[in-house]
Amino acid sequence: MIVGVLGGGQLGRMLALAGYPLGLKFRFLDAVRDVPAAPLGRRITAPFDDKDALTRFARGTDVVTYEFENVPVDSAAFAESFAPVFPPPKALATAQDRLSEKELFTRLGIPVPAYAPVSSPEDLAAAVERIGLPAVLKTRRFGYDGKGQWVLRTPEDVEGARLAAGGGTPLILEQFLPFDRELSIIAVRSRSGELAFYPLVENHHREGILRLSLAPAPHLSAAVTAEAESHARRLLEALDYVGVLTIEFFEYQGRLYANEMAPRVHNSGHWTIEGAETSQFENHLRAILDLPLGGTAVLGAAAMVNLIGALPDLGPCYAGRDVHVHLYDKKPRKGRKLGHLTVRAANPAELAERLAPVRALVEAAGG
Amino acid sequence: MIVGVLGGGQLGRMLALAGYPLGLKFRFLDAVRDVPAAPLGRRITAPFDDKDALTRFARGTDVVTYEFENVPVDSAAFAESFAPVFPPPKALATAQDRLSEKELFTRLGIPVPAYAPVSSPEDLAAAVERIGLPAVLKTRRFGYDGKGQWVLRTPEDVEGARLAAGGGTPLILEQFLPFDRELSIIAVRSRSGELAFYPLVENHHREGILRLSLAPAPHLSAAVTAEAESHARRLLEALDYVGVLTIEFFEYQGRLYANEMAPRVHNSGHWTIEGAETSQFENHLRAILDLPLGGTAVLGAAAMVNLIGALPDLGPCYAGRDVHVHLYDKKPRKGRKLGHLTVRAANPAELAERLAPVRALVEAAGG
Repeated sequence: MIVGVLGGGQLGRMLALAGYPLGLKFRFLDAVRDVPAAPLGRRITAPFDDKDALTRFARGTDVVTYEFENVPVDSAAFAESFAPVFPPPKALATAQDRLSEKELFTRLGIPVPAYAPVSSPEDLAAAVERIGLPAVLKTRRFGYDGKGQWVLRTPEDVEGARLAAGGGTPLILEQFLPFDRELSIIAVRSRSGELAFYPLVENHHREGILRLSLAPAPHLSAAVTAEAESHARRLLEALDYVGVLTIEFFEYQGRLYANEMAPRVHNSGHWTIEGAETSQFENHLRAILDLPLGGTAVLGAAAMVNLIGALPDLGPCYAGRDVHVHLYDKKPRKGRKLGHLTVRAANPAELAERLAPVRALVEAAGG
Repeated sequence: MIVGVLGGGQLGRMLALAGYPLGLKFRFLDAVRDVPAAPLGRRITAPFDDKDALTRFARGTDVVTYEFENVPVDSAAFAESFAPVFPPPKALATAQDRLSEKELFTRLGIPVPAYAPVSSPEDLAAAVERIGLPAVLKTRRFGYDGKGQWVLRTPEDVEGARLAAGGGTPLILEQFLPFDRELSIIAVRSRSGELAFYPLVENHHREGILRLSLAPAPHLSAAVTAEAESHARRLLEALDYVGVLTIEFFEYQGRLYANEMAPRVHNSGHWTIEGAETSQFENHLRAILDLPLGGTAVLGAAAMVNLIGALPDLGPCYAGRDVHVHLYDKKPRKGRKLGHLTVRAANPAELAERLAPVRALVEAAGG
């Protein structure tokens, strides 16, 4: 079986590493040549909208998926003439527009912070009037890792944002919730409709970039887990979704508010490689190949620490107890995800003990 | 860092899958083109004794290793002009000759069944006289999976083996121990001399081929573990060994007798991929790259079931609780190792429950 992957970044790399044991082969289409997945399959270097390249890429595959959520929806849809494409391109289209995403959440009864579309300075003024401050102004499309976001706290901030609001780029204003923490759920649905959920994870960001995930999220009530799974189930079924889907939530006053969804394997699920019975990468492949899904239980407790911008001294990381190193073979650059470390332990107390020196090493590297 | 691997079989495939997360790249030299490791690195197709090919293969690598114990020692030694070669070729030379192996074990005080070299019908008669029956006549070199072995139980068997003994192939006669079970230890030593041992595993063979490994071996006394580790330590240090080394033992009347060693990652260590803190493949790479070794603890209990000759129905395997499928992308053929399944559980009782249906499926496939 040949799996075609649109995008050849670290998510594609980890998909392939999970897929070879299942006897799969891989093809990658990416505009850049030396991407992290390059050594792990046949590589086609071309822009995503190159129809000839897409044809060469998709023809002969058994299934096509994507590892990058800004893949053009048209490219994913075009690949459907050669092989089934999962997750379905309509899920990709929804996830690429923060407004459609929020509207879908709302339609499904999944709470979200108050929001309003903004296409002009007048829209902005009206939205601020309705939602209040603080609020976050975001581009509707192509944002990632906190890029394309402005926090508005004061009337002066709003004044400064008027120019952006008139620039022709569709925006969305969202209420800034003084949330207690960020949680995410990694959910998976197979072609047969089988569902599975990993335990909720607590995520810590800095400068808009995920730095740390704790699995399972500490102090989690059964009610919050049930709420997250219910939201995820409705979303997966509404989209007739196939594959792994992630929803990021804000936890605020004991309730969950959906922030965004990612129609793919997700950084906050990397801990599953060693920390869960089956990794998110393997379960994504099982889902799109219509195999039974693997177990999603955590093996004890796990933490994922991102390596951002610069690598730490890896010697002490390797020497740490049950520390797993994952490098993506990318050149260091400020703000870039170069790899991650997963620390595993039998329980949260032991995890905290093993994690502390690892975090100190990563902090020391600057990142 | 580039790792060169002599041999491109399933062991090379699993080494590469373990090595990419560490940021490594791979090259393989194998006489056959479509080997299991082929999609996972640069592949050079040529006989092991082709000096030009060996040069292209080894030049520019950071370290060379092998995944096949019948690699010519001269080829491994030749590669040393380009990069360090681990395990050391002298360990390979010892392991390739059952007589040298037994002599080394004996010199190091590691008990072995009684043995005698056989080069002629007269040698055979004298050896049988000394060792008694039953005994096993084996080729000294190039045996694997029970190939090149004849069990001699009666004087008629001995008479029948006279021809083989006169055929010019160096043989060895070994006492046939009515052993209680077979155990193996996976040991690892790094370039800095750091040592680690996985727990002893109980192995079950049929038709000379490993079928099942249980980790840790049931009903294991601390004394037997200490004995095995002491044997392995002496062997690793005597050979100035670097990498993973496996010793297969017979357990007989509460004592261990070394049967043979393998200077490489080993089939009885495949359970470590999901069942141990760090896999044998990653620890082999850490050892030859002089990184600190990873933990060798078992995560609960694990069993490895080989898929021999024909694949079972994989659907129910995927559906089994914590069952991990590993396929090697090889064409089915009688007696051929096509893949393996690892079953993991929190404890041996739970493992037995999960393992039973998996074994039934594999048995049903014939293999």
